[in-house]
Amino acid sequence: MSTAPVWSVDPRTGKPREEVASEATEHEVDEAVRAAWAARGALADRGVRAALLRTAAELLDGAAEQVVEAADAETALGPVRLTGELARTTAQLRAFADVVDEGAFLDVRIDHADPDRTPPWPDLRRMKVPLGVVAVYSASNFPLAFSVPGGDTASALAAGCPVVVKAHPAHPATSELCASLLRRAAVRVGLPADVVVLVHGFDAGVALVRHPLVSAAGFTGSVRGGRALFDAAAARPVPIPFHGELGSLNPVVVTRAAAEERGEEIGAGLGASMTLGVGQFCTKPGFVLVPAGAGADALVKALTAAVGDSEAGVMLDHRMRDAFVAGVAERAALDGVGAPVTPGSGGEHTVSAGFLTVSAAVLASSGPHDLLLEECFGPVTVVARYEHPSEIGAVLSRLPGNLTATLQLSAGEAAGSDGGAAGLLLASLTGVAGRVVVDGWPTGVAVAPAQHHGGPYPATTSTSTSVGATAVERWLRPVAYQNTPDLLLPGELREGVGAGVPRRVDGRWEAPTPPLP
Amino acid sequence: MSTAPVWSVDPRTGKPREEVASEATEHEVDEAVRAAWAARGALADRGVRAALLRTAAELLDGAAEQVVEAADAETALGPVRLTGELARTTAQLRAFADVVDEGAFLDVRIDHADPDRTPPWPDLRRMKVPLGVVAVYSASNFPLAFSVPGGDTASALAAGCPVVVKAHPAHPATSELCASLLRRAAVRVGLPADVVVLVHGFDAGVALVRHPLVSAAGFTGSVRGGRALFDAAAARPVPIPFHGELGSLNPVVVTRAAAEERGEEIGAGLGASMTLGVGQFCTKPGFVLVPAGAGADALVKALTAAVGDSEAGVMLDHRMRDAFVAGVAERAALDGVGAPVTPGSGGEHTVSAGFLTVSAAVLASSGPHDLLLEECFGPVTVVARYEHPSEIGAVLSRLPGNLTATLQLSAGEAAGSDGGAAGLLLASLTGVAGRVVVDGWPTGVAVAPAQHHGGPYPATTSTSTSVGATAVERWLRPVAYQNTPDLLLPGELREGVGAGVPRRVDGRWEAPTPPLP
Repeated sequence: MSTAPVWSVDPRTGKPREEVASEATEHEVDEAVRAAWAARGALADRGVRAALLRTAAELLDGAAEQVVEAADAETALGPVRLTGELARTTAQLRAFADVVDEGAFLDVRIDHADPDRTPPWPDLRRMKVPLGVVAVYSASNFPLAFSVPGGDTASALAAGCPVVVKAHPAHPATSELCASLLRRAAVRVGLPADVVVLVHGFDAGVALVRHPLVSAAGFTGSVRGGRALFDAAAARPVPIPFHGELGSLNPVVVTRAAAEERGEEIGAGLGASMTLGVGQFCTKPGFVLVPAGAGADALVKALTAAVGDSEAGVMLDHRMRDAFVAGVAERAALDGVGAPVTPGSGGEHTVSAGFLTVSAAVLASSGPHDLLLEECFGPVTVVARYEHPSEIGAVLSRLPGNLTATLQLSAGEAAGSDGGAAGLLLASLTGVAGRVVVDGWPTGVAVAPAQHHGGPYPATTSTSTSVGATAVERWLRPVAYQNTPDLLLPGELREGVGAGVPRRVDGRWEAPTPPLP
Repeated sequence: MSTAPVWSVDPRTGKPREEVASEATEHEVDEAVRAAWAARGALADRGVRAALLRTAAELLDGAAEQVVEAADAETALGPVRLTGELARTTAQLRAFADVVDEGAFLDVRIDHADPDRTPPWPDLRRMKVPLGVVAVYSASNFPLAFSVPGGDTASALAAGCPVVVKAHPAHPATSELCASLLRRAAVRVGLPADVVVLVHGFDAGVALVRHPLVSAAGFTGSVRGGRALFDAAAARPVPIPFHGELGSLNPVVVTRAAAEERGEEIGAGLGASMTLGVGQFCTKPGFVLVPAGAGADALVKALTAAVGDSEAGVMLDHRMRDAFVAGVAERAALDGVGAPVTPGSGGEHTVSAGFLTVSAAVLASSGPHDLLLEECFGPVTVVARYEHPSEIGAVLSRLPGNLTATLQLSAGEAAGSDGGAAGLLLASLTGVAGRVVVDGWPTGVAVAPAQHHGGPYPATTSTSTSVGATAVERWLRPVAYQNTPDLLLPGELREGVGAGVPRRVDGRWEAPTPPLP
């Protein structure tokens, strides 16, 4: 393993900015994991975990100017977007603090002994306990919300698990800054700094998922990288859960009635959603089923205008820029693929948005056009025109799993005037995605308790979510205590108030909770 | 792939009883999965699922005599145990029907739109949906409760997933009989029979976990077989969740005070627990930390008496009998291992129970004695004598994961008179197991809502349970609906009563449920 230097690079020029750190050696990864492991006991108290999360949010908000500047210099995402992303990140930390305080995630169930059953039931009390050290792999496209201080870290700390974060090479300086703030927050609430440890380097990332003291991993990134780490996690002598968000096409279905009723609005909305953040959202709508024929012309015209008007943009790094340019060229070269607005290179350091068109009929069976059913990271989408609604189901059944699927309906269809056709479409989309959006756009993932950000593989490698209150469930395992003296039980399982957490006692809900803020 | 005949064999004689079926070819596995897949839509309705589970219980109870006779002829477990196991199995089917009726497992969460937030929240409604076809791998040692009509099948059907069961070769006739009863129950409630399909054969089992239309698997069996199938599930182009229960040592810790206070009772209890069902329970206490010295002599004496008095027994099949005889011989031959009652061959078709002793000190670091920390299936346990309590933690930290861990305390320790030592022991045991038993024995797994039957690898390959109400969670994935017209939503997510299921609406619990029966 090397000790190569880690450089921060300016994507607007491709030039190195500063040397930030060194790639961690295998020995350093071992030290990092052992340090985090040693800190796990300190996280046992729920109160201090909530305080850690809130203090981290406070320190990040306090350093907002510095954080946004660091992230913009490395990612070119711009101060407006990054200020928003920071607000989202600190709101998320606070939301998980509320989750910790409330305690419903412990899923406490108590069955009192029942000697009258055959065979008799013993006293059983079940709750969830932290898994251990969690490895977090940062995303390129969200240097804050899905990176060092992001949802994986926040939910793992909420669960009581120390975290070793593997920084993304596209923003090492931002990662260092955020890690130092999280570690400072830990010390401020009386915890060891090592409840969060940062490492850099590709090989370090591989060593991390293989480390015997790592108990679970969270990942946001590419299918290739995520699958390699998933495979390593599964191949360990002791396999561990690997919660990876890998890739998603995010199909959109526009019914004929919707296209005819509000084609212009849909085309403009699609153009805005697919170019947002230079098309670098995991929820970018990358595949759109639009009816063929003149009735949908207004949609395509509005999309052409919206995408044609968008400015050339800087992608997160030059490797991604090159992959985008090559990916769209390969797709555009397929038989029968048109490009009303040609996506591709927009200059030495930028890319320009565009979209491709194709007949849906060619996608109903396997062939070279299957490439159009794979995610292409960047500002491009594929518009597939269908002649008959029966083609929609045929194409949807060939899609890999997705984070989202979107349905654009007419007012009449939304009101049920179509004899159930919209309901069947919704059921089809439910089969291929973890979030179904009606008459909206999939970009924008609200940090709300009911959110689900996950979906059938390769959207995620598990059935879990990386956003929303239930993301904490990834880092826990249940334990049942049988006939255990009250005095020896964790507070949440004792007779009486049970530390105020919601519980199911002999099947009844106990102590319903106040609303989450 | 062969079409070898599948024979039912009498373990009491080793002689074939009857030819029951043929091993399924790859083509037949494909047909089985497709048939189950085609039936999945019919399971969407929760009412019919509950009816299916209750009708299945009714038909099994109605055929009790026939089922017990078939199972006894193939497993030699005896009519008393098998009558109890059938009662447990049908109670479990009914318990899952109650879980389906109640609907809490759907984990419904609704966040109404909030336009005042930055950014605004859309309307989000989340619930769980069935994963698809589930492959179930039957256990040898529970021909009913962990086989065709067992917990994996019951919980998968409860979740809305059709099931393809791979029969265990130790009880093919029982498997056929139970499958026919389940299929009859399906038809009786208006479902396709193919919501449950049975296949036989080792190769068929491998083909099953690799089939593209199989979405998840449940397994109860050996570490070797389970790990091979887990690896196949993880290596698929689209990996699937594999919930396997593979093996467990089930450590017991006896404190010095407990041994001195009630050594006789503990020794007798241990002897009864480890020989129950000819030691063929996944929760058999296979490793016991007992203090060295005269203070614990009563314990060892009582254990010697209990085990020495136990009758020779017939194991489930001759392959297991041979593995047991070889396994105990290999362990007994290790340096410093004693055998106060020698376990091993008890005759041509039977085995006799026994136990081994060793000094705990030799287990504190790795070496040939590590074999004693591996499960040996059958009526044997290892008693490791410790000089000082500090050895307990050292040995526990070297154990693989377990389904259970048991702590035997004195009355004073249970009452907290020991300055917190018992609490620390309990925390250590929590780290290595999924269920912690105090002053009892781990054999006997109550089918209660709060039950957890799972644990760190290799006890299970996931964080889930195969017994208890939460076992249903294994076969579900969440889906969130965003801004979806009420009319198009599943009933459970609509405004108002929401089909009567418990829900969290804007963070508040809605409609607390009646107690589970």
